[in-house]
Amino acid sequence: MISISREEILGFEKRFRGTFVNSLSGVKSANLIATKSAAGNSNLAIFSSVIHLGASPPLLGFIMRPVTVDRHTYQNIKETLSFTVNHISYDFIKQAHGTSARYSKEVSEFDACGFTETHSEFYAPFVKESALRIACKLSEDIEIKSNNTRLITGHIEKVELKEAALLPDGYVDLSVLGTAGISALDGYHKIEKAKRFKYAKPHKKVVDLNGRNESES
Amino acid sequence: MISISREEILGFEKRFRGTFVNSLSGVKSANLIATKSAAGNSNLAIFSSVIHLGASPPLLGFIMRPVTVDRHTYQNIKETLSFTVNHISYDFIKQAHGTSARYSKEVSEFDACGFTETHSEFYAPFVKESALRIACKLSEDIEIKSNNTRLITGHIEKVELKEAALLPDGYVDLSVLGTAGISALDGYHKIEKAKRFKYAKPHKKVVDLNGRNESES
Repeated sequence: MISISREEILGFEKRFRGTFVNSLSGVKSANLIATKSAAGNSNLAIFSSVIHLGASPPLLGFIMRPVTVDRHTYQNIKETLSFTVNHISYDFIKQAHGTSARYSKEVSEFDACGFTETHSEFYAPFVKESALRIACKLSEDIEIKSNNTRLITGHIEKVELKEAALLPDGYVDLSVLGTAGISALDGYHKIEKAKRFKYAKPHKKVVDLNGRNESES
Repeated sequence: MISISREEILGFEKRFRGTFVNSLSGVKSANLIATKSAAGNSNLAIFSSVIHLGASPPLLGFIMRPVTVDRHTYQNIKETLSFTVNHISYDFIKQAHGTSARYSKEVSEFDACGFTETHSEFYAPFVKESALRIACKLSEDIEIKSNNTRLITGHIEKVELKEAALLPDGYVDLSVLGTAGISALDGYHKIEKAKRFKYAKPHKKVVDLNGRNESES
């Protein structure tokens, strides 16, 4: 094991530091957030910070970097309150990574990176290629004072997903969806089938949820 | 594809809903957060919500469920400002899952679940079995009003990791660490080697970071 102090991290070359610190939390979710400006321009951007916040009411969140420069996703959500979260499949990680480039506001990353918009009763578009898509309505926009990032929270209004991935107990199998994971800024992982355990109780052995993934209800 | 509305989600049986909504964000990081009360009782708990917040200063965060019941991790952090984040290896997912059981405050999950404490200049203990460990100092405790959860943010004070996992550009290879991922409430994934891409530029093809994982600097 090696040990790295805060002072050493602060002294790292900027890109090395960014890559290193972005690695530390572990594997991250891989999503495309789609929005549309009030003027009608669609936007699509990759986010590795989408997290579960609660089931009742269904709520999720993601981190927005400091809005000291133009952030199209942020501007569109503030204008329209509407956004969609779309799982990135391992099959299209290359195109998804392309949405991280700094396109100008008039350019739709759907067109530039090869994705297809679908429309519904929600203002923000969905990504047709995604195997799980969530329509959200802005709930809160919370400033994190330590570094001027923001936690954006959204109420889940609708979920569209590949039916075969939804198991009888409500578990969504990411390996059936084909959903990818992210590490650091540029690493993409294929997600294999999970090993599941039963609800843990104090001083009892942890028990495998044997075969439940496949057959039991 | 199937479509599920907010009303349908709210109408789901409680455990089904919890499992379903917890699945939606995609793959989640797998960490054990270790703390010690002011009275000296160690605590260890599994969290799937640790996220990167920023590299400069190095900052991370995690979600704490509503503190309407006793939350030992929360109480200890508020008392001592100190906590550590320890990657869960796929090798010990079963023991790590066991820390989610509701042990009473006097019981150390280190002992109950088979983990070893190590001590340093930081108040909170580390998990010896973990291949990447982060010492943190509480930065902010932010209430998310939509559902009374909290975002706890921490300054990264020190990182200990398996040296072989740190690549020449600062990237930490999760597959070398053996770090796991989580889906929903009880699914654990082995994380394989990532495919990495170069920094994306507008209207240019996304390029593989060929072999850089292994050899280039």
